[in-house]
Amino acid sequence: MAQIETASYETTINTIDTLQGLKRTHACNDLNQDHTGQEVTLCGWVSRRRDHGGLIFIDLRDRSGIVQVVFSSDVNKAAFCKAEMVRNEFVLAVRGIVKVRSEGTVNPNMATGTIEVEGNELRVLNTAKTPPFYIQDSIEVDEILRLKYRYLDLRRPEMQKDLLLRHRVTKSMRDFLDKHRFLEVETPILTKSTPEGARDYLVPSRVNPGKFYALPQSPQIYKQLLMVAGLERYFQIARCFRDEDLRADRQPEFTQLDIEMSFIDREEILSLMEQMVAYIFKEGIGTEIAAPFVRLTYEEAIARYGSDKPDLRFGMELIDLSAVFKDSGFKVFDAVLANGGQVKVINVKGYANAPRRELDGLVDYVATYGAKGLAWIAYTEEGLKSPITKFFNEAVLNKMTAAAQAETGDLLLFVADKPKVVAAALGQLRLEMGRRLNLIDQDKLSFLWVIDFPMFEYDEEDKRWVAMHHPFTSPCDEDIRYLGSEPGKIKAKAYDMVLNGIELGGGSIRIYNRTLQEKVFSAIGLTPAETAEKFGHLLEAFEYGTPPHGGIAFGLDRLVMLMAKRASIRDVIAFPKTQSAAELMMQSPSEVGSRQLKELFIKSEVPAKK
Amino acid sequence: MAQIETASYETTINTIDTLQGLKRTHACNDLNQDHTGQEVTLCGWVSRRRDHGGLIFIDLRDRSGIVQVVFSSDVNKAAFCKAEMVRNEFVLAVRGIVKVRSEGTVNPNMATGTIEVEGNELRVLNTAKTPPFYIQDSIEVDEILRLKYRYLDLRRPEMQKDLLLRHRVTKSMRDFLDKHRFLEVETPILTKSTPEGARDYLVPSRVNPGKFYALPQSPQIYKQLLMVAGLERYFQIARCFRDEDLRADRQPEFTQLDIEMSFIDREEILSLMEQMVAYIFKEGIGTEIAAPFVRLTYEEAIARYGSDKPDLRFGMELIDLSAVFKDSGFKVFDAVLANGGQVKVINVKGYANAPRRELDGLVDYVATYGAKGLAWIAYTEEGLKSPITKFFNEAVLNKMTAAAQAETGDLLLFVADKPKVVAAALGQLRLEMGRRLNLIDQDKLSFLWVIDFPMFEYDEEDKRWVAMHHPFTSPCDEDIRYLGSEPGKIKAKAYDMVLNGIELGGGSIRIYNRTLQEKVFSAIGLTPAETAEKFGHLLEAFEYGTPPHGGIAFGLDRLVMLMAKRASIRDVIAFPKTQSAAELMMQSPSEVGSRQLKELFIKSEVPAKK
Repeated sequence: MAQIETASYETTINTIDTLQGLKRTHACNDLNQDHTGQEVTLCGWVSRRRDHGGLIFIDLRDRSGIVQVVFSSDVNKAAFCKAEMVRNEFVLAVRGIVKVRSEGTVNPNMATGTIEVEGNELRVLNTAKTPPFYIQDSIEVDEILRLKYRYLDLRRPEMQKDLLLRHRVTKSMRDFLDKHRFLEVETPILTKSTPEGARDYLVPSRVNPGKFYALPQSPQIYKQLLMVAGLERYFQIARCFRDEDLRADRQPEFTQLDIEMSFIDREEILSLMEQMVAYIFKEGIGTEIAAPFVRLTYEEAIARYGSDKPDLRFGMELIDLSAVFKDSGFKVFDAVLANGGQVKVINVKGYANAPRRELDGLVDYVATYGAKGLAWIAYTEEGLKSPITKFFNEAVLNKMTAAAQAETGDLLLFVADKPKVVAAALGQLRLEMGRRLNLIDQDKLSFLWVIDFPMFEYDEEDKRWVAMHHPFTSPCDEDIRYLGSEPGKIKAKAYDMVLNGIELGGGSIRIYNRTLQEKVFSAIGLTPAETAEKFGHLLEAFEYGTPPHGGIAFGLDRLVMLMAKRASIRDVIAFPKTQSAAELMMQSPSEVGSRQLKELFIKSEVPAKK
Repeated sequence: MAQIETASYETTINTIDTLQGLKRTHACNDLNQDHTGQEVTLCGWVSRRRDHGGLIFIDLRDRSGIVQVVFSSDVNKAAFCKAEMVRNEFVLAVRGIVKVRSEGTVNPNMATGTIEVEGNELRVLNTAKTPPFYIQDSIEVDEILRLKYRYLDLRRPEMQKDLLLRHRVTKSMRDFLDKHRFLEVETPILTKSTPEGARDYLVPSRVNPGKFYALPQSPQIYKQLLMVAGLERYFQIARCFRDEDLRADRQPEFTQLDIEMSFIDREEILSLMEQMVAYIFKEGIGTEIAAPFVRLTYEEAIARYGSDKPDLRFGMELIDLSAVFKDSGFKVFDAVLANGGQVKVINVKGYANAPRRELDGLVDYVATYGAKGLAWIAYTEEGLKSPITKFFNEAVLNKMTAAAQAETGDLLLFVADKPKVVAAALGQLRLEMGRRLNLIDQDKLSFLWVIDFPMFEYDEEDKRWVAMHHPFTSPCDEDIRYLGSEPGKIKAKAYDMVLNGIELGGGSIRIYNRTLQEKVFSAIGLTPAETAEKFGHLLEAFEYGTPPHGGIAFGLDRLVMLMAKRASIRDVIAFPKTQSAAELMMQSPSEVGSRQLKELFIKSEVPAKK
């Protein structure tokens, strides 16, 4: 686009050059003292320009990093004059010679800080307006603005690093799984609505009036059918969709690494996944991970940490003092215990001198998790301090001290309530105290498996049993007998991988028998007609020689977020949506023409605002 | 699930075994004479069972292939008895010893045909009903049935081979591009409707009443914005969606390899893509491809082959005889030439004795491409035979013979019409004659680039200019001057990769200047308001330092289809849709509940059938 003859473009286009005849030879960050004296051609953006001592210094930035280019009117007058005109974020091509910097001018904070490029030729490939925020790391900018100008936000080195990491992670997943004979298979995005679990996104069909596709919440049924098809080992880095109200770490569309295998048992899949995760962390961020991972049953995890995704980076386990306080005479505890409740405690080591105001605040904290109260006992130098010790005799207190392994300086925090409430409240309190007392080593990676989940949980609202993982999960063999009678007793062949208190992935060994699958559907309240309509294809498939199989799925966004040490998954997604499910750069969703809707046999019906 | 105590499962489940205690050691096809005497454990499906001489032979099939297992009551009575009960497609685990087959029983048609496994233990992991069609290659079954039972269709070795190839192809694309510093970045599936080109699939938003997302027709704008973001080299194996009436080789959702690069010119991208395609063919099917590929300008391709995706596996080029027949006195030709038309010919070598009936049929054939007639001249042993030679003097005939390089035995086929009609009709006729005369070497791979496409073509129906590639394509520098005045004269920096007459991929060097982009939108009839609404984000982005960039996209389904030598892309897609955009196995699209629609603020409005 060098010479434009039409007058109307002159103002804009005549000031810019083309690359014609030049070929980029290096990325900025490639350069070091080994290149001294070499002629190089670089392309990139102006990160900074400054004039000093009759010279012009430009920090040229490309995806790889930054290098300093110097223009002097003695070396090349034309290039120098052009360099005078450039501003931040202009796009340049530079031809020049690599020189070693003199001792006083070396920049140890820069990867290329021992050299600079003496510019012989400068081409301005494009100009730039002043960006709405600085193109540099750790900026304090409203996220709304960052999302609106995402193409500038992504130009910042830390964002590029995150996208590079995400690429590296998916590449290493594929390399590992390919080596282990998995095939990546693409399953449909336009699929069938089977509202069980989350809400579906729907897509009206033009060719089939009145009918709708649904976007997949996961490729679950397709991957199981691929096992029926004899694929044996499948994976997919799959886009999934859930039309749910968004929490901080949720997106309407998200990505999961989806895996399914035939002819394996739980141990084989857990062990293979440990190897895979170790490989990914090594390739992605150079971290060695020790396998096998800790394994906790669901029951144990709840008992010891009050959570099915415990953070094992620190101790402060929940201690059950129900036996200690049985018939202690303290009415509050007695009442709870008589109703099938528990008295549990965490021992906050060395925090006996916690300010009274903080302790009062903790009452409100546990209340948000449903606990009606929080008791405390401080083991101070002056003896026990507490509003409740007066209710107990010395024998009970001694037993308590022993059971809680309490020493002078410790603070015990008590919750007495129904088991579910105790777990939730004390589990969260444990995490909160860990954060407040800085007990969590941010560099530690604590992996574990949680296994033996309950098959069903009772939905108090809907008054029915629901599948805790999903209804395709196999019950444990010895529990199948309870299917018709006591669903609450059944454990499932399900497993979750947890890292630092966050669920990375979950899966299960599947049902592969029609009768058993039908029983499970029936247990969660599906009628035979509903079962047939929604899952008839899967049930029929089970009758044609279905191998035993199982699988797992990992949330990719969250995994990369943890590896990048970011606080939000939006930082590891190129074009994320806001909490109102909008994309601010393109401004989607948007209104569409009525002709478009008519073609799809739908009508928009928005109630008038009151 | 070994011992089930509940009576209700007995009938179904008691007959099946678990894998417990057994671990698969090999895939069926792994085995050869090196394993002789070794104990192996295999898992798979019964491909065939036959009883012969008191022995039971089972062809056991897994993803890798087939091996023969022999059960004898002398070796293991229990296994033998179980083997008597198995049927085709039962799922088995077999433990046994690898034995060399005796000379007379070697099967040279089987990869493992020199050995067999003597079964010591047999477990029936699942039973199977009789499938609706044979699980073997080259079956003659209605495709409707194959799609309904896709999980059985995919169990056939040739289908598994195709999925394996597809996996191998995408893996090699990623390996190649990763090595060349490309980053794979996921772009949104829930995006904005910008109906330009094909029809969008729409997704109603629940959170934003009255608004809609659109599924992407391609990640075009996102990938350009990633270049603005400084990613420099992007790729994605991306799902794309077009709500168009389906032709044989189209799917509502399809996959493309999407690529974009900054700081490059056309030559660099073409050359890199040649290397990539060569790598993919080598890795995927072991075929060496020679680069660089032939390059034809659009003009040349149309002139010589009547097509912008010519099949170069055979000659029979179109020859322009307009100059020869100028003022020849033959009224039909004279009229065409006077109106700016052409007289062109293909020389069908050695086909002078074509039956008269076939020649008459060709008239109908070219008529379907708009040609009003087809003339022919046969160079027989007895001299020229033709209904039209009588209109020409000898000088004209001699010039014709020389220009067409016609010899005794040849048949010339003439179309005289407007250039567009001549190209379409004679180009298709060339292909048809190539097929009829078996001139096309099915093992040959003829790659080429078609370059220098026109920027715009005139849409006679809409009475406006439309972009031939898309409006983001850069016009050639020297043609920009025609933008306001003569859009038909402008060539674009666009390129297509063609293989054996099929377009594999296409791309272009992009516009990266706001003013120029606005001019192009205006040339295709967009008002400034429409431009701002649909593409405002891109235009604004262009002002913040956009590098020169370009890219390309390849249709993955078609590429794999060609590599697999399949006739339909449905054979290389795991779960394809039919021509009425339905998926027969899950039966999508389907009707959904009115509550679901109400939540989305839409109403279904299907007109009553008349």
